[in-house]
Amino acid sequence: MARALPPRGFEEEDTQKRLQWLEDKTGVRLDDVKPDEPADYRGIIENHVGSVNMPMAVAGPLVLSGSYAQGEYYVPLCTLEATLSMSMSRGLWLTSLSGGIKTRHLKQELSRSPVFIFDDIEDAPEFKLWLEENFEEIRTIAESTTQHGKLLRIDPYLIQNSVILDFVYYTAEAAGQNMVTIATQAACQHIHGAYDCEKPCHYFIECNFNCDKNPATKTILLGRGHQVTASTLIKGRYLKRVLRADAAGYVRGWRQCSRGSQLAGVVGMNMHVSNALAAIYMATGQDVACVSENALGSMDMEVRNGEDLYASLTMPSLTVGTIGGGTGLGQQRRNLELLGCVGENSSKMLAEIVCGAALGLELSLGASVLTNEFAQAHDRYRKRTVLEGKV
Amino acid sequence: MARALPPRGFEEEDTQKRLQWLEDKTGVRLDDVKPDEPADYRGIIENHVGSVNMPMAVAGPLVLSGSYAQGEYYVPLCTLEATLSMSMSRGLWLTSLSGGIKTRHLKQELSRSPVFIFDDIEDAPEFKLWLEENFEEIRTIAESTTQHGKLLRIDPYLIQNSVILDFVYYTAEAAGQNMVTIATQAACQHIHGAYDCEKPCHYFIECNFNCDKNPATKTILLGRGHQVTASTLIKGRYLKRVLRADAAGYVRGWRQCSRGSQLAGVVGMNMHVSNALAAIYMATGQDVACVSENALGSMDMEVRNGEDLYASLTMPSLTVGTIGGGTGLGQQRRNLELLGCVGENSSKMLAEIVCGAALGLELSLGASVLTNEFAQAHDRYRKRTVLEGKV
Amino acid sequence: MARALPPRGFEEEDTQKRLQWLEDKTGVRLDDVKPDEPADYRGIIENHVGSVNMPMAVAGPLVLSGSYAQGEYYVPLCTLEATLSMSMSRGLWLTSLSGGIKTRHLKQELSRSPVFIFDDIEDAPEFKLWLEENFEEIRTIAESTTQHGKLLRIDPYLIQNSVILDFVYYTAEAAGQNMVTIATQAACQHIHGAYDCEKPCHYFIECNFNCDKNPATKTILLGRGHQVTASTLIKGRYLKRVLRADAAGYVRGWRQCSRGSQLAGVVGMNMHVSNALAAIYMATGQDVACVSENALGSMDMEVRNGEDLYASLTMPSLTVGTIGGGTGLGQQRRNLELLGCVGENSSKMLAEIVCGAALGLELSLGASVLTNEFAQAHDRYRKRTVLEGKV
Amino acid sequence: MARALPPRGFEEEDTQKRLQWLEDKTGVRLDDVKPDEPADYRGIIENHVGSVNMPMAVAGPLVLSGSYAQGEYYVPLCTLEATLSMSMSRGLWLTSLSGGIKTRHLKQELSRSPVFIFDDIEDAPEFKLWLEENFEEIRTIAESTTQHGKLLRIDPYLIQNSVILDFVYYTAEAAGQNMVTIATQAACQHIHGAYDCEKPCHYFIECNFNCDKNPATKTILLGRGHQVTASTLIKGRYLKRVLRADAAGYVRGWRQCSRGSQLAGVVGMNMHVSNALAAIYMATGQDVACVSENALGSMDMEVRNGEDLYASLTMPSLTVGTIGGGTGLGQQRRNLELLGCVGENSSKMLAEIVCGAALGLELSLGASVLTNEFAQAHDRYRKRTVLEGKV
Repeated sequence: MARALPPRGFEEEDTQKRLQWLEDKTGVRLDDVKPDEPADYRGIIENHVGSVNMPMAVAGPLVLSGSYAQGEYYVPLCTLEATLSMSMSRGLWLTSLSGGIKTRHLKQELSRSPVFIFDDIEDAPEFKLWLEENFEEIRTIAESTTQHGKLLRIDPYLIQNSVILDFVYYTAEAAGQNMVTIATQAACQHIHGAYDCEKPCHYFIECNFNCDKNPATKTILLGRGHQVTASTLIKGRYLKRVLRADAAGYVRGWRQCSRGSQLAGVVGMNMHVSNALAAIYMATGQDVACVSENALGSMDMEVRNGEDLYASLTMPSLTVGTIGGGTGLGQQRRNLELLGCVGENSSKMLAEIVCGAALGLELSLGASVLTNEFAQAHDRYRKRTVLEGKV
Repeated sequence: MARALPPRGFEEEDTQKRLQWLEDKTGVRLDDVKPDEPADYRGIIENHVGSVNMPMAVAGPLVLSGSYAQGEYYVPLCTLEATLSMSMSRGLWLTSLSGGIKTRHLKQELSRSPVFIFDDIEDAPEFKLWLEENFEEIRTIAESTTQHGKLLRIDPYLIQNSVILDFVYYTAEAAGQNMVTIATQAACQHIHGAYDCEKPCHYFIECNFNCDKNPATKTILLGRGHQVTASTLIKGRYLKRVLRADAAGYVRGWRQCSRGSQLAGVVGMNMHVSNALAAIYMATGQDVACVSENALGSMDMEVRNGEDLYASLTMPSLTVGTIGGGTGLGQQRRNLELLGCVGENSSKMLAEIVCGAALGLELSLGASVLTNEFAQAHDRYRKRTVLEGKV
Repeated sequence: MARALPPRGFEEEDTQKRLQWLEDKTGVRLDDVKPDEPADYRGIIENHVGSVNMPMAVAGPLVLSGSYAQGEYYVPLCTLEATLSMSMSRGLWLTSLSGGIKTRHLKQELSRSPVFIFDDIEDAPEFKLWLEENFEEIRTIAESTTQHGKLLRIDPYLIQNSVILDFVYYTAEAAGQNMVTIATQAACQHIHGAYDCEKPCHYFIECNFNCDKNPATKTILLGRGHQVTASTLIKGRYLKRVLRADAAGYVRGWRQCSRGSQLAGVVGMNMHVSNALAAIYMATGQDVACVSENALGSMDMEVRNGEDLYASLTMPSLTVGTIGGGTGLGQQRRNLELLGCVGENSSKMLAEIVCGAALGLELSLGASVLTNEFAQAHDRYRKRTVLEGKV
Repeated sequence: MARALPPRGFEEEDTQKRLQWLEDKTGVRLDDVKPDEPADYRGIIENHVGSVNMPMAVAGPLVLSGSYAQGEYYVPLCTLEATLSMSMSRGLWLTSLSGGIKTRHLKQELSRSPVFIFDDIEDAPEFKLWLEENFEEIRTIAESTTQHGKLLRIDPYLIQNSVILDFVYYTAEAAGQNMVTIATQAACQHIHGAYDCEKPCHYFIECNFNCDKNPATKTILLGRGHQVTASTLIKGRYLKRVLRADAAGYVRGWRQCSRGSQLAGVVGMNMHVSNALAAIYMATGQDVACVSENALGSMDMEVRNGEDLYASLTMPSLTVGTIGGGTGLGQQRRNLELLGCVGENSSKMLAEIVCGAALGLELSLGASVLTNEFAQAHDRYRKRTVLEGKV
């Protein structure tokens, strides 16, 4: 059995050693993927002029006991932020010492929210009634455009002379943004034709209410994409050894973070889950712009058993998938394979892995702030060329 | 003079034609950059195991008349979202027909916000007074750690028995997150030693109040990184020709978007500036995780001259830089050179380019929603292999 | 038929004339109510030491065409803010000239949100399933404590190792805060006893999630108490005559208000519906502290027919009632009678009246800001004694 | 020396005993105030038709050690919510047993925020520069309209083609809303005339950015009116005796409240400070509609010394005054006298009293939720007539 943590170093041979180590651990060889051809970019990008090499690391071991993800994972990360992969590894290793991380997949729902606009306010409640009566027909039409998507319900929101219809779908292994767009467009065309109101109405396929690519309280409350919770119970002695922290101090410090966030009107309650999201999204072919809407996790810390730390993270929105979009590109797919995220329920597995990895990273960063090692860590890993002068 | 828009197509030869076309337009050859070596990743990433090829397109022409950015730009985009580069090009071309986009760089400030915690509430106002009296000394110490950073001020926020100190810096060409961390750490160590209060106090270097990597109302209000405004006045006939829209209808439709956003508790007022941010950030070596805190733009639309559309976008937070971090990697630097973002004021130029590009993309997307072409566009550009079956 | 607007003046005889005028209009005599005795205050206030005279005016005519409220109303207002009653009367008179105000009662739901706390995250989904299976029994127990309240549903929200249960009730003519507390307490005691989990759990009857007495995005999104929409279409010529404004200018000005609100992180989108709420709540025995959670209306303005103004206001939360609490006190009940708010559906009527009155006030204030008469109006009505010197 | 707590009971003679008790404690006789005449309502209310008797209680003893308020207070409360005055008395008595409540007055600033609108975005930075250069002249003009108000600064916020000017004033003993309106109007008229830009601009006196009568994150962050902090350290044995709670359990329970609030997008972090505000505002002639913008307090709880509870409350916004508006009416003024809030710094004293009283009420309510006595308390105090049937 290979050692838990990868060999270090910044030389080519160190990279090779880590690739070998990773193959030993996981059976997956990362560097034998052939590059994508321009023709592979159809449906991915137009006006292709080349590519940018995004450097990649792995962090682990992420020991997961989840609804779908089970076992030991090594998480591929594309990042340009010094300390990120080290810090996540530190956090994950810490949790693995105490038995790993639990996750629960709570739900998977993605919506598109067209708005129907009427002449006056009395038309809105009438339209709502009609929709309820005709839901089955609308569902049939929406679902006719997709093989795997399911229209779970339409939540109507009445606002002045408009009705926003939140079409809520299950999107299976796809992140699903296009799926819900096409299905909802078909449904809206039908509704617009079939609803026989005396006064004219018109609609737009979206009014930003679904919060696609936007941070929003609605998403925290109702979820968007996968909603996942993760937790870990860290033994006091490991907390001390790995993070040089104690549980009571950690909890006290975290309260300051909660207070600072609330005062600043932060949406969500975490320090930087966005770092974990962006790094994994780039490595696995996800839509990185979704970091804007997904970085809403709620962290909580608690002392248990006198000296242990119970840490938990609920992420209300992870719009990730394992088919469609960039997930079909060679290296990205290989990284999904590295995580075992292929086949049925693989998008849910991926969401659990993301949440677990984010918890590990958050734990490590939190400790570095708490113990005032944060600045030093960043100092230590800054690029040499930068350090020759001052930044 | 080369044609305004690049040649289309998804074959290798199409890519080559575009590279030539881009060289003709800008004088920059993108494909002659040597790959980075593992040793180049020191200070960028640890535990390097390879890289992911992020496909890249260019969008343009972005015709800018800004505080710092002046002229015609072709914007490098890394994205996996079909239609994004086409849509941005459409929007930018539209604005170029009407004279381009104006930008104004409003300010550049980055903060770190340590919290000092006291026994009781009466200690907070006393500490605040002491800080005001000792500001010059604190500034000297903070600035001693950095060559280019300037400590502009310390804004104190008193909350219960704590005082949050928002250390606000000017970070020149750097995005500056590490710069402000190291400077503030030095300042806090000094403060903690020098402040002679009878009762004990302690501090943490951060309490999330600076909203680093988090979406927040504070950032909308007070800014974070570069704050930039962009505007364009689009002639009615071009609006009709390029976007198949009319100005009055566009403004009416946008109102629905504003209402939907407000109802959902969205922070910011835009549809998807995060798409522009993520794509340019990946191409130019920025920290992509910052999309979580930067995607807060405020869009506005107005009818002018009966049929023209006046569109403006204020982005309160663009934490971009042109030195440090990933901006020193080969391809990323080449892309910055493509944009002319080197040397003095180049970070401000970059911020203006990002804001202008985001405005162009938003205009194009907004129109596709308004004219109900949104679903069709996504349908058209979806990957063939996906379209053979249904999604 | 008496004149539409009441006689003016600040002398005792003017007050008498207005009381007579009001009786002529409505058949209700306001000044023959006997004062309440201390014993009447049981269940209202403890440690009674007297009372404060809250001066009262009436505003109108409010011409309503609603789901429940129909006809012409004169709205009792207790206020200490000069111009408020004049301004509301101005707005209501304006709307009455154009055919009055439409209202639609959208829903009436009040919740209490206990939280059940478990050892770890895996207990939460299991508990959620158990609840769904046992809903009918729980409903029976909850409803056994109340004659008129109905438990509509329990919405579970899973957050880390806790499950928040939003118990959503219909509360009939009562505002219902106590009703939902007592019913939910009974339900929680049953759940805590009946749920046979291996690990211990405990609960609190509230975790602030229901947003009682707090402003919140959840309330905007999901409603709390009565949700009502009001609209009016004001003819351009009356807009000009009464408010000295034109519709296009009004809409342009209102956009500034929307932008200013968004920038400041205001919850809701209105200028001062709280003024209408507080004044009517004091006059009709409502819980005035609820203004904190109810002042979340969303106003919208639109030009119609070239020169007419279409104004609409959706209020997501009006926690008003016509039985229970202070509504049983003499003068407060008389004021409810003045509004015809007695008997079945009277709480819905009252909610519609409040929303309509708020729309009238908002229209009038908006115009005074737009036409820069705002400062003058406040100047004119300031108290003489104050004006002798400067404030 | 009279007993600390008032005699109980709901009969006329009980009220008389309490009045006597209160006179013994404070030297103030509440029931000898002559009623106001209609003529007294000039500048208070128009279209006067009578008044509503708002029943009043007192709560106490509030033992304060503040920046301005010092000593023992009995707080007048107008409320219709059963349990409120008992609950506040319980909380205040508890704090008095442990040495009372500390308060610190942090600042007093009230703003009005006109918006100046320009043709295009480049006009905004120019206007900002002009303002800075002409600030002294603008201040002179603004302050010429007021005897006591001081213009502290003008904070400019640039948004697209507009500049919002947050005129920040010190308003002395007045709540000051009218004062800042009139001063700002004079300033804006001057600015509009004096600013010699080539392109036209216009302005509105307000764009809702000052958040008058609206709940907003800006207010939490920057304050509005008086900003006050209060704290108390409650001995464990009193906590047990009076509230039947222990400190550690209290803190754990409060965390649930913080989490529930964050999840629901509540602005602020408290359970019901609005109850204290509304009750004191009605009793002392404040503008009750301001409860909508003032109920934003941030509560925090901490275990100290193993078993003691340290509780603190920061209220960022208390727009209270002791001159102007309803504070001149007979009974309201008498209540201000009861609190000693007359003369210099009396508005600051009043703000400290409000904050201290709110802390006491919050402590008591929090405990009743924690110990599951909440429902019982409401049940016990519900009106008998209601209890004969079920609600």
